Amino acid sequence: MLKDFKKSKPEEKEALNAEIKELRAHLIAQQQQLREAKLPVLILLEGWAAAGKGSLIKDIISEIDPRFYNVVSPMVIPENESRYPFLYPYATAIPENGKLIFLDSGWMESAVQKTLSLEISKEEYKRRVRSVNEFERQLRDGGYLLLKIFLHIDEEEQFKRLEALSENMDTEWRVNREDLWQHREYKKFLNAYDEFMEDTNDTIPWHILDGQRKKVAARDALKLLVGLIDKALEKGRYTGEPFEEKFPLIKMPKLAEVDLSPTISDEEYKKELKRLQKRLAELHNVIYRKKIPVILCYEGWDAAGKGGNIRRVANPLDPRGFDVHPIASPEPHELNRQYLWRFWTRLPRTGHICIFDRTWYGRVMVERLEGFCSEKDWKRAYNEINEFERQLTDWGAVLLKFWIHIDSDTQLARFNDRQNTPEKQWKITDEDWRNREKWPQYEEAVNEMLKKTSTENAPWFIIESNDKKYARIKALKIVVKALEDACDKHFKREFG
Amino acid sequence: MLKDFKKSKPEEKEALNAEIKELRAHLIAQQQQLREAKLPVLILLEGWAAAGKGSLIKDIISEIDPRFYNVVSPMVIPENESRYPFLYPYATAIPENGKLIFLDSGWMESAVQKTLSLEISKEEYKRRVRSVNEFERQLRDGGYLLLKIFLHIDEEEQFKRLEALSENMDTEWRVNREDLWQHREYKKFLNAYDEFMEDTNDTIPWHILDGQRKKVAARDALKLLVGLIDKALEKGRYTGEPFEEKFPLIKMPKLAEVDLSPTISDEEYKKELKRLQKRLAELHNVIYRKKIPVILCYEGWDAAGKGGNIRRVANPLDPRGFDVHPIASPEPHELNRQYLWRFWTRLPRTGHICIFDRTWYGRVMVERLEGFCSEKDWKRAYNEINEFERQLTDWGAVLLKFWIHIDSDTQLARFNDRQNTPEKQWKITDEDWRNREKWPQYEEAVNEMLKKTSTENAPWFIIESNDKKYARIKALKIVVKALEDACDKHFKREFG
Repeated sequence: MLKDFKKSKPEEKEALNAEIKELRAHLIAQQQQLREAKLPVLILLEGWAAAGKGSLIKDIISEIDPRFYNVVSPMVIPENESRYPFLYPYATAIPENGKLIFLDSGWMESAVQKTLSLEISKEEYKRRVRSVNEFERQLRDGGYLLLKIFLHIDEEEQFKRLEALSENMDTEWRVNREDLWQHREYKKFLNAYDEFMEDTNDTIPWHILDGQRKKVAARDALKLLVGLIDKALEKGRYTGEPFEEKFPLIKMPKLAEVDLSPTISDEEYKKELKRLQKRLAELHNVIYRKKIPVILCYEGWDAAGKGGNIRRVANPLDPRGFDVHPIASPEPHELNRQYLWRFWTRLPRTGHICIFDRTWYGRVMVERLEGFCSEKDWKRAYNEINEFERQLTDWGAVLLKFWIHIDSDTQLARFNDRQNTPEKQWKITDEDWRNREKWPQYEEAVNEMLKKTSTENAPWFIIESNDKKYARIKALKIVVKALEDACDKHFKREFG
Repeated sequence: MLKDFKKSKPEEKEALNAEIKELRAHLIAQQQQLREAKLPVLILLEGWAAAGKGSLIKDIISEIDPRFYNVVSPMVIPENESRYPFLYPYATAIPENGKLIFLDSGWMESAVQKTLSLEISKEEYKRRVRSVNEFERQLRDGGYLLLKIFLHIDEEEQFKRLEALSENMDTEWRVNREDLWQHREYKKFLNAYDEFMEDTNDTIPWHILDGQRKKVAARDALKLLVGLIDKALEKGRYTGEPFEEKFPLIKMPKLAEVDLSPTISDEEYKKELKRLQKRLAELHNVIYRKKIPVILCYEGWDAAGKGGNIRRVANPLDPRGFDVHPIASPEPHELNRQYLWRFWTRLPRTGHICIFDRTWYGRVMVERLEGFCSEKDWKRAYNEINEFERQLTDWGAVLLKFWIHIDSDTQLARFNDRQNTPEKQWKITDEDWRNREKWPQYEEAVNEMLKKTSTENAPWFIIESNDKKYARIKALKIVVKALEDACDKHFKREFG
């Protein structure tokens, strides 16, 4: 890639300027079409320090409506980064439909720098490369237009530019330690950039532009962008084809096979509740200090007892260290972005616990059954979700998923009870009755979900909840066990 | 306040527990009522280190639905704080309707600590106290329930607790440098807390609870909270009365008096545009290094040329250092919070520029005229907005407000042009025509707005835009002048 890069030839200035002018006019015209077609565009701009990334962006956007794009630069990112997964700053910054964002350096610079500074291991680097490939593909499959540019200058040119910046009092602050380090280790970086680009070139290809000739680079970038948008406007929003990657799966029973008879005595319940909650409180403390993030996912039938179950888990926790996110139908600004965005933005910081009351699995349940997304969309989601969850557990998160299960008769009894008890009436709506009519379709969808997404790193647990007390104790035991294991593993990683 | 605090007497344990149990049950019942009444609740919990704030929160929420509340603790806040106004972390964390949040330490601890550590001057302290009073009143007037609690322990008790925590390997990490410093300077802190509480007691009163007796404090806090909610449920959502504070105002002409004839020649326009944009680019650099935040507000008639004007200002800026926020009608999650929330969350970081394309002045224009808020609401807003803007300029922001002005005939001509030009048709909607019919009412509202909110620190500028080019140059000149002044003043502050 970079090693074989051929410098661009000098071009006739006036012709070049005319070309740029025309491309800009074209881009201006595309603005409104993109808005109408609701297409989101993400431009990743990587490259050498002092290669001119900032001015390249300026050259591209020079005349377009500033309400139409955003620029996200690393200056805005670093402070939170270490408390969140690697891709968090980028995944939370993706544009909404009809808008365009520029990432002025993104996942490549971050991965390469941290590898060369030995902040992350080679294994972690590989995981990050995999995450990047997954992330880019998911965006593309969700209809995003992605353009990846690397702005290249050679070692000599970089030296000249850094020197010129450093010698001028007004610009010397622009040269930072990382830039000087990069220049000193130019060859190492060259190899590392090349390796990264080769590793991430298959799904969305890289484009290397010549930073030595500013105008040529601007023209080439505009051409790429305008071409990409034209193609998308012509073909319409892309929807990716489903495909299955092999994840190590845990075999799950079908819902119909689950024995819902287990119960617990009141006495045993009280004793166990007390013991487990006490233990959970202790573990929360350890989790916090060891900075282990914890994500608990609750799904289940209406009236299965999700709320009460969540309450028993949340109750012993230090309220400063956890959040519960009730997930309702997405709001307009959420619908306008890839479907996992509203979960990325709700992730816990390291050391915190967050509980999702309903989750991203809405994609393969309600959105599938109500037609809120296309068949390709929900079929693709199993794999996408497995990838997303692996990114979370790679980050170090404990991720547990509960299906709170009851049978249809129990649901009916609870619905009737709610309907007939004035204080509970708010808990039951027409929608609940409508959903109940679709029990068989939901059951099929749940079975498929359990089968395809119970991975070893993020397993599903079916919680038998005809007896709610039994269900609470079962969930608590699973949480306690998982946190104990995580603390133990973490201890080994730190000292062993 | 604290100096006169009388310790609570020991109470009979069983009666106390029974009381707590009853209050909790009451609070559980209130959850759903609060949700239905869409009332937001904010509980500010301040107090000594090791006074037991965390466990007090736990005692209060012990049985309520965790989806119903959130706890915001200072652990989550500090890292961004210094790049935003003092109240930013709290103003962006206010609950949505029907929800409850706890601030585990908030604006009081922050103001007191920074004053005693001499990080902020006495003058800045006073400004912060004023901001706090304004902020609390605005929340109350907007229908928020506020409860302010200080959890008190005496010096001896604090010593015992800190010692006990420090001696235990599992808890010593809980005691940090600030805690030890606070203990060493117990008397200074006592005086400072007292002063702060006296300064902020008039609008929303403080309640001092006895941290020495955990159960008593829990009972008292629950009683206060339950009482507050009951009262609000009975009386309905509170709406504050409008009142006027005297702000130093700049006299503005009425719109009808504005001479709209000024124009600029094409030649002069090109020359000036080039000169001003070049200067603006230089200034953006300085602004960035000096960390001066800049906020530009655009309001104006439909088709007055806001978009093109904004583009000429944004064009020369480094795209990594500015954002344009187009403000449309609020989304559901925005409507569910105080009306300024969606602007707080969009403020620039220090050193950054943000441009609002329409602003918080929607309150006294479209919301007023379309009845989207009550008369009291919009009448109160002039003062609230002046306060909000003073908080921003106190923080150091340059805040400029442009009214892009045209006459009714010019609007009609531009509307017709849009209607008759295929590429421009998307720019004109039925709503624009409807709004046009209300020109006289809007003119009255704009006149009142200009009269009441053109403060010395955040002035309005009427930009005559019958000639759009003239308008662009005028706006650019104002921006350039204001940034030059700000850099100059900042220079004096730093070195003079």
